[in-house]
Amino acid sequence: MRTVKHPEERKNDILNAAQVLFSTKGYQQTTIIDILKAVGIAKGTFYYYFTSKEEVMDAIIDRIIKADIIVAKRIAADPNLPVVDKLFHIIMAQSPKQGSNKQGMIEQFHQPSNAEMHQKSLIKAIKELSPVLADVIQQGVEKGTFQTKYPQETVEFLLASAQVIFDEGLFQWTAEESIHRALAFIDLLESSLHAEKGSFSFLLKRLTGEGDENNQ
Amino acid sequence: MRTVKHPEERKNDILNAAQVLFSTKGYQQTTIIDILKAVGIAKGTFYYYFTSKEEVMDAIIDRIIKADIIVAKRIAADPNLPVVDKLFHIIMAQSPKQGSNKQGMIEQFHQPSNAEMHQKSLIKAIKELSPVLADVIQQGVEKGTFQTKYPQETVEFLLASAQVIFDEGLFQWTAEESIHRALAFIDLLESSLHAEKGSFSFLLKRLTGEGDENNQ
Repeated sequence: MRTVKHPEERKNDILNAAQVLFSTKGYQQTTIIDILKAVGIAKGTFYYYFTSKEEVMDAIIDRIIKADIIVAKRIAADPNLPVVDKLFHIIMAQSPKQGSNKQGMIEQFHQPSNAEMHQKSLIKAIKELSPVLADVIQQGVEKGTFQTKYPQETVEFLLASAQVIFDEGLFQWTAEESIHRALAFIDLLESSLHAEKGSFSFLLKRLTGEGDENNQ
Repeated sequence: MRTVKHPEERKNDILNAAQVLFSTKGYQQTTIIDILKAVGIAKGTFYYYFTSKEEVMDAIIDRIIKADIIVAKRIAADPNLPVVDKLFHIIMAQSPKQGSNKQGMIEQFHQPSNAEMHQKSLIKAIKELSPVLADVIQQGVEKGTFQTKYPQETVEFLLASAQVIFDEGLFQWTAEESIHRALAFIDLLESSLHAEKGSFSFLLKRLTGEGDENNQ
């Protein structure tokens, strides 16, 4: 007997299967036929939800970013956490788990042929994450931990620069170069937010990739 | 009688013709046949220099960035110019002239299908321009105008963030949003380089697109 699934559930099944295929087989190498087979649905069912493979990828990116934003907002709203700790937890929560589908997606973005997708996800991440981080910065301004006239805009510049410079697909830094960039970025955060020296030292490990296996 | 041209000259003819075609007709819409016709050469001559249309585009990007770097280096080496003026002139020299081929190229990068090319040119510009700007920042550090432990790395972050946030293809800011980002970026420059307040106010016009028609 065929199971009748709720449309949202069916859509999620397609996204789950496609995400696994994209991160294991590769986006370019995955066909819509592969997705149909993996979900066990007919072509018509697929086209009821999506018009192309690209649209599936867009929906996967949206879903990953939305999930990140939910976590980030929860942390930002915690009344008991100091602002620097909030930033720490939000940034750490963005890191993909080793071997996760999110990590697989990021590897796909590093293929030159997927540059358009990479660009879309970069812009989307800046647009969605910046207001949440700006809210935390603003809390810090009110508490006197930070000082800036432009929380929203400063966060946008910081996010954009970090996403470009620390992207392993765009720049292949040596270990030493990577440490210098991490130190410089920490310095940039502290100076732009007029934060106390050392406030962002927690980022050193995160940015140089050390201790990534311990991420949540 | 056929003119025998020097290989470098012939190569430049191809690049010139392709650049005009790419910026008028569009990169996607231009075929290799169009380029052959415009230069008046045979297919074999084209393939002697390039293996694909993409390679022609790469060479055009290289040529634009190289020309910018020559100008930037000349300004950086001027012993009579104060460091802030050097930065002013280098940044202003990067702006494409209205109606120039460079401007046409930038418009091509804004097509989503040209994201790979856009990304390549962004990375190349950061890699090539950052050492020249870092040299000027270092001169400023020695003169006491600026203060930073990481001139090279800080310049990379600043260039990367500006290239993303001020890219009209990636973000469509309203006039007001654009002014806020310009003010925030000026603030970011001044705080990260510990420069005197107002040092980078000259950028306001440049970043909000005002007065672009007067650019050299």
